[in-house]
Amino acid sequence: MPQSQTEISTLGEFGLIDRLTEGLEISNSATAVGIGDDAAVLKYSEGSEVLVTTDMLLENVHFDLTYVPLKHLGYKAVVVNLSDIYAMNGTPRQITVSLGISQRFTVEHIQELYAGMRIACQEYGVDIVGGDTCASHQGLVISITAIGEAPAGKAVRRNGAKDTDLVCVSGDLGAAYMGLQLLEREKVASKGMKDFVPDFAGKEYLVERQLKPEARRDIVRLLAQNGILPTSMIDVSDGLSSEIMHICKQSGTGCRIYEDRIPIDYQTAVMAEELNMNLVTAALNGGEDYELLFTVPLTDHDKVNAIEGIKVIGYITKPELGCALVTRDGAEIPLKAQGWNPLAADKAQEQ
Amino acid sequence: MPQSQTEISTLGEFGLIDRLTEGLEISNSATAVGIGDDAAVLKYSEGSEVLVTTDMLLENVHFDLTYVPLKHLGYKAVVVNLSDIYAMNGTPRQITVSLGISQRFTVEHIQELYAGMRIACQEYGVDIVGGDTCASHQGLVISITAIGEAPAGKAVRRNGAKDTDLVCVSGDLGAAYMGLQLLEREKVASKGMKDFVPDFAGKEYLVERQLKPEARRDIVRLLAQNGILPTSMIDVSDGLSSEIMHICKQSGTGCRIYEDRIPIDYQTAVMAEELNMNLVTAALNGGEDYELLFTVPLTDHDKVNAIEGIKVIGYITKPELGCALVTRDGAEIPLKAQGWNPLAADKAQEQ
Repeated sequence: MPQSQTEISTLGEFGLIDRLTEGLEISNSATAVGIGDDAAVLKYSEGSEVLVTTDMLLENVHFDLTYVPLKHLGYKAVVVNLSDIYAMNGTPRQITVSLGISQRFTVEHIQELYAGMRIACQEYGVDIVGGDTCASHQGLVISITAIGEAPAGKAVRRNGAKDTDLVCVSGDLGAAYMGLQLLEREKVASKGMKDFVPDFAGKEYLVERQLKPEARRDIVRLLAQNGILPTSMIDVSDGLSSEIMHICKQSGTGCRIYEDRIPIDYQTAVMAEELNMNLVTAALNGGEDYELLFTVPLTDHDKVNAIEGIKVIGYITKPELGCALVTRDGAEIPLKAQGWNPLAADKAQEQ
Repeated sequence: MPQSQTEISTLGEFGLIDRLTEGLEISNSATAVGIGDDAAVLKYSEGSEVLVTTDMLLENVHFDLTYVPLKHLGYKAVVVNLSDIYAMNGTPRQITVSLGISQRFTVEHIQELYAGMRIACQEYGVDIVGGDTCASHQGLVISITAIGEAPAGKAVRRNGAKDTDLVCVSGDLGAAYMGLQLLEREKVASKGMKDFVPDFAGKEYLVERQLKPEARRDIVRLLAQNGILPTSMIDVSDGLSSEIMHICKQSGTGCRIYEDRIPIDYQTAVMAEELNMNLVTAALNGGEDYELLFTVPLTDHDKVNAIEGIKVIGYITKPELGCALVTRDGAEIPLKAQGWNPLAADKAQEQ
């Protein structure tokens, strides 16, 4: 172990927590009591609703530390939770962070991870208010719970889409998935080589989308500023196809998504060609985009069209029409929620 | 795999979640939206504060499935979180449940675990409002976050103890630890033996305290009914010694705890003698009792004394006097927070 590295056992649980939370300040007036008690104390006003969401990330299932820097991992672990709060049309206020840590990690490693979390919290105005830290026999375990609020009656669920509503998505899709393919390719290429320098030239966007995604707070604000309240909303974590089917299933509707309307970045397209992969499949099923997918009434068409970074990609139909992709040549292909099934045996093995 | 067992991969993540949450009803009016969206939606009134706490449990660190039935594990995993909400003088309302599941678990296994969680939730009037389910390569991972509320200004923290306050504890201490010793002993005795029947005769209480602890909702209610608002409170999860030192450190005080006042069950004492262990050490450092440890002003002496199941075990002092145990012969021994250090290397290895 290098000299600058400290074994966690020398600090113990409470020492480690003290080290990690040193100088941690509370930025939300809704946070009355943060870390250091049996529970955090939060204050929400009469006119708001409290939102809660949680995500678990396991080493070698959700992340591979051979190419994911710990600081980026911390940042991403927070952002994916905040994304769920934004997807409710809410504002995240607090998170709790539980960590399972195996013995190969030092205090400095965990500080690096935590530094990424703190940067994300600062960026999004969120307080770390609690957590749990324990020994793990099997790599790193990260479990984050995010708490937020929405004005009473303004939380947007998945079940409010109506026939003729427009289907909209922010940003572009498939880039994070292509970033993952690229990182995996370079990992294979680096095997057994010393001082290997991965080649990401011209593909920086893909790597960033995979390693340091952002939650679309800006879109939630733009919608509010433009007087748009979506009828349904979800964040794209498992792929567009899987997410739109969640909305349609819970809303009791069908949908039509136009292939040629799906926003795809140039770098995503180049990478798909290089890897000889179907670009639309990647955009439909890739996952980890953390863009917002939502529906608005047809009457909001001009309003959403005027917002940069939002694209209308289809519309909601009666349920009997099912969910389908309309291809460039006008054919209709049923959508499949083949997204990411982390519990399928073959998936678990290949990861 | 027996015929009655279903591989999780046949259901997939969403199928498993559907199976687990089938018929799950919302019992709290504070729960507006439960499972099935990006986040749960909770409603709290102007006059209350929201409490949040979280715990992570890892297989072979926090539990050993060779002697912990999955249903009990689920029950306990919920209860230890609720205990933290009660320790704030609050009422738990919701939990989220994240599970990391390795391939040796079947759908039926996870249903068994979840059944225990649901029983605990019913027992304590709590709603399961969200979670995450994913594949794990290394055994079972359970991360639970509990959310609750306390009337505005009534949340009791660890930092309010004052010189001359009385130190009180509910129930009895050390039994859960002795239950663990017993279970470990029978595990060793059973090695290589078929149809081994463990011998728990006369020690049922110890086993129950370890496998199926309860959170002290009744004590929180009794305190309120008797007009007692503790100046500080914590639940005993790491051992009395460690917990009273948390209170004293955060309150800036010292304390005196009387050895002969520490409540210990008869079965605990018998087991300690059998194992040739120091009984007071077990009660001070055993952990997992989930009793409530709290301080009240001296003027509440008669009120707390009148409540069955609460014992005054010492008093708070000025900080310069430090934290000490007063033995039966009047000697003062400094308290040590040797509690459970899950991050100490030797601990991690021995578990």
